[in-house]
Amino acid sequence: MGKVRFNVSMSLDGYMAGPHQSERDPLGLGGLDLHSWLFALERRQDADGEEGGIVNASTRVARELESGYGAVVMGRNMFGPIRGPWNVEWRGWWGEDPPWHTPVYVLTHHQREPLEMDGGTTFYFVTDGIASALERARASAGEEDVLIGGGASVIQQYLASGLIDEFWVSIVPILLGSGERLFDNVGSSITLELIEVVEAPEVTHLKVAVK
Amino acid sequence: MGKVRFNVSMSLDGYMAGPHQSERDPLGLGGLDLHSWLFALERRQDADGEEGGIVNASTRVARELESGYGAVVMGRNMFGPIRGPWNVEWRGWWGEDPPWHTPVYVLTHHQREPLEMDGGTTFYFVTDGIASALERARASAGEEDVLIGGGASVIQQYLASGLIDEFWVSIVPILLGSGERLFDNVGSSITLELIEVVEAPEVTHLKVAVK
Repeated sequence: MGKVRFNVSMSLDGYMAGPHQSERDPLGLGGLDLHSWLFALERRQDADGEEGGIVNASTRVARELESGYGAVVMGRNMFGPIRGPWNVEWRGWWGEDPPWHTPVYVLTHHQREPLEMDGGTTFYFVTDGIASALERARASAGEEDVLIGGGASVIQQYLASGLIDEFWVSIVPILLGSGERLFDNVGSSITLELIEVVEAPEVTHLKVAVK
Repeated sequence: MGKVRFNVSMSLDGYMAGPHQSERDPLGLGGLDLHSWLFALERRQDADGEEGGIVNASTRVARELESGYGAVVMGRNMFGPIRGPWNVEWRGWWGEDPPWHTPVYVLTHHQREPLEMDGGTTFYFVTDGIASALERARASAGEEDVLIGGGASVIQQYLASGLIDEFWVSIVPILLGSGERLFDNVGSSITLELIEVVEAPEVTHLKVAVK
């Protein structure tokens, strides 16, 4: 069976998104700066054909993050800005060919029919909780990993429930001052082990196992 | 002129001390675990004669932290657990030969005569604010650095005032869940630059400049 893992970029003061998240600004004020190390990289050849970008120590980390999983679980707020019952015209932030190419289980309180996109991504809407979503994702993923896509609240719930095996946290030397903290609501009972450190320009990647 | 710098160990969830700090437990619950990487090291030969300990990638960082400064500024809570007017029997946490061997400026609202200890450490009690304490420390330090000793509140005040040049943050892969956060109350207006990363057993040291 594969691992259950997540990966996030975090500011030095602990935030994975800035304040004032909105449809226009889904990562909040300053939140995009957490990902500039990733945007600067040369994209993989199977991606959308964009040219250019750099290759550095982050390249290997990005490849590891973006491969090896067979299903994704994400929170409703990561899927879209809509609250309450679904507006079925909302098909995610990512256009018709979302970047997962696997089943994606979206945690929600509101039922919705599965949504099949191009490129192998299908969104399934799960209304009976994080354990059920993970069980379905594991069944889809088979021998591959399950990626917990976020946001913060979903990652925190899986961490606090002891359901995460491993994560990459990419620490970016900026201060956001407010926003969504990665490790809020997780408590102190989880034992971590540092597995690997990758030093790269403008970011330090830590690979951590949950014991 | 030397730099103004600090160094702290921080949990992965951003705390530099655990909850429930007290005279018996000055670093709070779990706070000592932030420093086990340092306690495990072989002590310098000019220290108190203890034998044993290990040498690893943290050794060079510890030597850099513990040398090159000519004065220290610290908060009253770091000097002792006493609140209100001084009980002059309190002479700090560290015995008669404190580990600084320089002038130490203690920020307080209550006047007290200077306290000369063994080994070159003298505590001066400063009642007119952080800028004044830093000015006096700079005068004492000459060409050497000024070390902002802590605690969190004092570090935050100097950071927010733009008075810090550089710091080491040693990130320890533990979660404390609550306590004193290093970067609270600092805001988002400070620009940082990652200067150096040192990967060591059980800790990742980041050297950061404030631009």
